[in-house]
Amino acid sequence: MTNRQMSLVGFMQAGNVTVYSGSWRYPSAELGFLSLDYYAKIARTLEEGGFDLVFFDDRLAMPGVYGNSVADAVRYGARPVKLDLTAVLGGVIGATSRIGVGATYSTTYYDPFHVARTFATLDHLSGGRAAWNVVTSVNDSEAQNFGLEKHLGHDERYDRAHEFLEAVTALWDSWEPDALVMDRESGIFADPEKVHEIDFAGKWFKVRGPLTVPRTPQGRPVLLQAGSSGRGREFAAEWADLIFTGDPGIEVARQHYRDQKKRIAAAGRDPDTVKILPMAYAVVGETQAIAEEKERLFLDAYVHPVASLTLLSEVLNYDFGRHGLDDPVTPAMLDASSGIRGLFEGVRRHLGRDDLTVRDLAAHRATLLQGPRFVGTPDRVAGQMREWFDGEACDGFVLAATHLPGAFEEFVRMVVPILREQGVFRSEYTGHTLRDHLGLPK
Amino acid sequence: MTNRQMSLVGFMQAGNVTVYSGSWRYPSAELGFLSLDYYAKIARTLEEGGFDLVFFDDRLAMPGVYGNSVADAVRYGARPVKLDLTAVLGGVIGATSRIGVGATYSTTYYDPFHVARTFATLDHLSGGRAAWNVVTSVNDSEAQNFGLEKHLGHDERYDRAHEFLEAVTALWDSWEPDALVMDRESGIFADPEKVHEIDFAGKWFKVRGPLTVPRTPQGRPVLLQAGSSGRGREFAAEWADLIFTGDPGIEVARQHYRDQKKRIAAAGRDPDTVKILPMAYAVVGETQAIAEEKERLFLDAYVHPVASLTLLSEVLNYDFGRHGLDDPVTPAMLDASSGIRGLFEGVRRHLGRDDLTVRDLAAHRATLLQGPRFVGTPDRVAGQMREWFDGEACDGFVLAATHLPGAFEEFVRMVVPILREQGVFRSEYTGHTLRDHLGLPK
Repeated sequence: MTNRQMSLVGFMQAGNVTVYSGSWRYPSAELGFLSLDYYAKIARTLEEGGFDLVFFDDRLAMPGVYGNSVADAVRYGARPVKLDLTAVLGGVIGATSRIGVGATYSTTYYDPFHVARTFATLDHLSGGRAAWNVVTSVNDSEAQNFGLEKHLGHDERYDRAHEFLEAVTALWDSWEPDALVMDRESGIFADPEKVHEIDFAGKWFKVRGPLTVPRTPQGRPVLLQAGSSGRGREFAAEWADLIFTGDPGIEVARQHYRDQKKRIAAAGRDPDTVKILPMAYAVVGETQAIAEEKERLFLDAYVHPVASLTLLSEVLNYDFGRHGLDDPVTPAMLDASSGIRGLFEGVRRHLGRDDLTVRDLAAHRATLLQGPRFVGTPDRVAGQMREWFDGEACDGFVLAATHLPGAFEEFVRMVVPILREQGVFRSEYTGHTLRDHLGLPK
Repeated sequence: MTNRQMSLVGFMQAGNVTVYSGSWRYPSAELGFLSLDYYAKIARTLEEGGFDLVFFDDRLAMPGVYGNSVADAVRYGARPVKLDLTAVLGGVIGATSRIGVGATYSTTYYDPFHVARTFATLDHLSGGRAAWNVVTSVNDSEAQNFGLEKHLGHDERYDRAHEFLEAVTALWDSWEPDALVMDRESGIFADPEKVHEIDFAGKWFKVRGPLTVPRTPQGRPVLLQAGSSGRGREFAAEWADLIFTGDPGIEVARQHYRDQKKRIAAAGRDPDTVKILPMAYAVVGETQAIAEEKERLFLDAYVHPVASLTLLSEVLNYDFGRHGLDDPVTPAMLDASSGIRGLFEGVRRHLGRDDLTVRDLAAHRATLLQGPRFVGTPDRVAGQMREWFDGEACDGFVLAATHLPGAFEEFVRMVVPILREQGVFRSEYTGHTLRDHLGLPK
């Protein structure tokens, strides 16, 4: 019997190097993020490392909540650049042959017909490697690029997302698998009995269909989701093939894992067919000292506190620019959103004191992500990852990069061989589609 | 002094081989239109031929006007397949290095922020080779994939398109050319004084901006447009860098050319900086007999009259399925749209009789396009093209393919060398951007 296999996913941004604000300043970071070669090279590195998937994050605006201005995002490189992901993925598909390719699209600011067509096309062009990371968007800055003043409320966004998914999956299924005939002699291109108008009519969307793309190699592209609220977990249980989490410690992660798997079963699906992966950083060095010096570079040297607050304001849709850096965190701030309260609790536990300032919040979330950070020699990093994986805190990891292409190159060169030797990660791809890699049904 | 140079553009569809319904049945047509290699190969062929641009047509629905059903479009292959063009272009960009790459996007069914970001991204990834073909969409089938019953009226569509372009170009200009600093030492990523919110507020759109993509290599991607109505010509005069036309004869084309250039001057632009290109078919053979046999294959052998009517119904937004194939064309049909009246007049002139049937209309527009058809030996085809070009009926051609990849391979192999020898077409690319190829200002 083969060992349970770990899933590995590379987490990317199309613009500004990586997800946190200091990444572009890292000494060996390449800054070619406006060129296709840059993305092709990184994707090929992950493919050499046997990764299941490379996927790209997105937001539909610059961070503009902090100080109600984009100026600090622009000044400090706090993710002012975000390219069109379909264009990037088209190029990445041409440069790779096996790794899955995913992009983030918002159910709040796109139409189902467009999104269905985009991912069906990506699935065909890649021979069955496409994934859609479903998000509902986060803040007013995005709303203001699409004619609205305010972002939709949380539940309203999820209502819309649910209906959006119903319409998209109906469009994906609108061609039966064997509808395409292409018989030149008879002149029959496809069987009209097997291509269906969907006549979808919901509260938010009306779509006649069919989609203009035949059934795709994967049947349906893989769905990714990262909701962590109760409503988000329900949504993921119903729809997602792969769920991202952001729990800082292994115990919380275990609880989350058990809870999410239970919800998947309750939604009538087989929990083994849904992967749960925390977003994690791996900081690897040939020696412990090298790894720790790299962590210092990553955490301290290049991150401006205002840049961190710019990104926090974006994610939490709360303007930290109203406060000074050394202002105390007040009850009024905590009441402004559940996200701020969660952040406060995390930092309080971490620092072991209650008198937090805005600067403390910024410092704690300098890396933006809340998931684990594995730091050390290759053996040590592999060991930490095994502890999470074997301890049923996860089914693998979504790895964010401290800098690019270095962080992924080093991980593939130093850590992947250990995981392979231990028999928990593939030596080579055995299937062709992303569903094959993940062990998911078609 | 160098000769006036001809512009050549390859006209493509992402799906179903080419623009007319019989193309997929052509004996040597390849049917790999769901794979990236297929598009990469054709684009490389056009690049070897020194073409200025390859661009892709689009519609946001299957043809569903004929008989109020998509069944015949599906059955006969009358363009039921249309892929996401940005995904295709991303792949084509990776497979080429000099040829321009263009896609059609509708101002009626997209948002300015998305479209601005898509083409700015394509322009960066391609090193300045991107073009947007601006359309306002054509029919109710598209409307019904986006929650509407009926397509917007003609003038309303153009009002919206005009405002759409204002918003998109403001977004493209929202980063000044030298805004990106990326100074690792100081930590300044970009100059906030040079990145501007646009605060666009019109009748249709409100967009805060800025765009999340820095100023592109071409400054602005190239704009293509094909409006032929009075309003369409005005729109093109104001916005387009490259205008497609569909005049069947050289005299009508000359009048159109003069009229359009006059309108460009009246809009305050230099008429020499806007190219006017008819959409044309070239059917080339080693001998006249081969070319004529190819034309017969193209026109007669593989086109079902119902497939032609399906596409005509799509373009004219009129249901020809209400009539039998041998029903006479009635005054009521002519009154239904100016497009049908124009079609009727064309067929009447061509056949020299008034008693037309629906079948006559279908047969006349079997190739769908209305522009010239050049048929013969390479010398003869080059001569016909020179007659149009030298006679100031056009600045070059948008070439549609009778079948693929054959039609473009044969044109590049047989006709391009003659045009090069005559000094009216480049021997090799001298610039790097599409604007360079077209001789347009940045």
